[in-house]
Amino acid sequence: MRLGEGVEWAVHCAVLLAALPDDVCLPASRLAQFHGVPGPYLAKSLQALTGAGLLESRGGRKGGYRLSRAADQITLLDVVLAVEGDETFFRCTEIRRRGPSAVAPRAYSPVCGVAGAMWRAERAWRDVLSGVTIAELAGIALRDAPAAAQTKAVAWFGEVLSARG
Amino acid sequence: MRLGEGVEWAVHCAVLLAALPDDVCLPASRLAQFHGVPGPYLAKSLQALTGAGLLESRGGRKGGYRLSRAADQITLLDVVLAVEGDETFFRCTEIRRRGPSAVAPRAYSPVCGVAGAMWRAERAWRDVLSGVTIAELAGIALRDAPAAAQTKAVAWFGEVLSARG
Repeated sequence: MRLGEGVEWAVHCAVLLAALPDDVCLPASRLAQFHGVPGPYLAKSLQALTGAGLLESRGGRKGGYRLSRAADQITLLDVVLAVEGDETFFRCTEIRRRGPSAVAPRAYSPVCGVAGAMWRAERAWRDVLSGVTIAELAGIALRDAPAAAQTKAVAWFGEVLSARG
Repeated sequence: MRLGEGVEWAVHCAVLLAALPDDVCLPASRLAQFHGVPGPYLAKSLQALTGAGLLESRGGRKGGYRLSRAADQITLLDVVLAVEGDETFFRCTEIRRRGPSAVAPRAYSPVCGVAGAMWRAERAWRDVLSGVTIAELAGIALRDAPAAAQTKAVAWFGEVLSARG
């Protein structure tokens, strides 16, 4: 079971936008360029984030994507579910109610014990992801980025922004 | 992101085998029949459990599958990973090291902050699953099964076992 690579791209885009000044937007092509990922595929992840209300898109010469709310109000879970969808990993098909031992559905406990345990694990996964904000990840990224990488990033952003006037 | 339905089938088979007397084996066809699931697909899950050392298969007239060790020594995580494989949900492709800010790989911290958070969530998922044994799930299944379903199950097993002499 794998999360799509669009999740990784989407999280890094959100983290990057969180690290930029509030009034700066970046178009999909620049987000793709900065992360070295394929633009057309990234666009799909960005649209998912926009559809979930995490990003907003502005038109015009200085247009592009920006976070739609403060980065400490967006969790890692928000981003992951926006891209992957909000379905559970485990789907219970109630196989306890099939076969030669089957009786009337109303006779069974509301939740199969197997499903209960599987969903408890998913809640634990979600709890960790909902306990981490994009602001925190941006802080970690800035703290951990090599100094030389930060210098190169600043230079690149300077060029990008000055090219837009 | 979805776990395959083979996970649900495999867990229920392990739980059923845990509830049977130690010396009883059930062939794949009977496990499929009891759970009302398609035999050929279930066979694949059973082979995965066997490959992971959780089930053993015996030949002969009274042959079939049984647990290869005590049900309190098999966790839900063991069964899930046997069927789904042991890869992580999240795969880090180190996109922080790409694009115009990239510097020498050795300059970066060992684990990207994004990957660190994603993997912490997976550990929480695994921790819940590894804290539940198949013996516990069998206990819950027996406790929760409707009385009428238990009666029908016992009758079915009686027929199955007597047909084998």
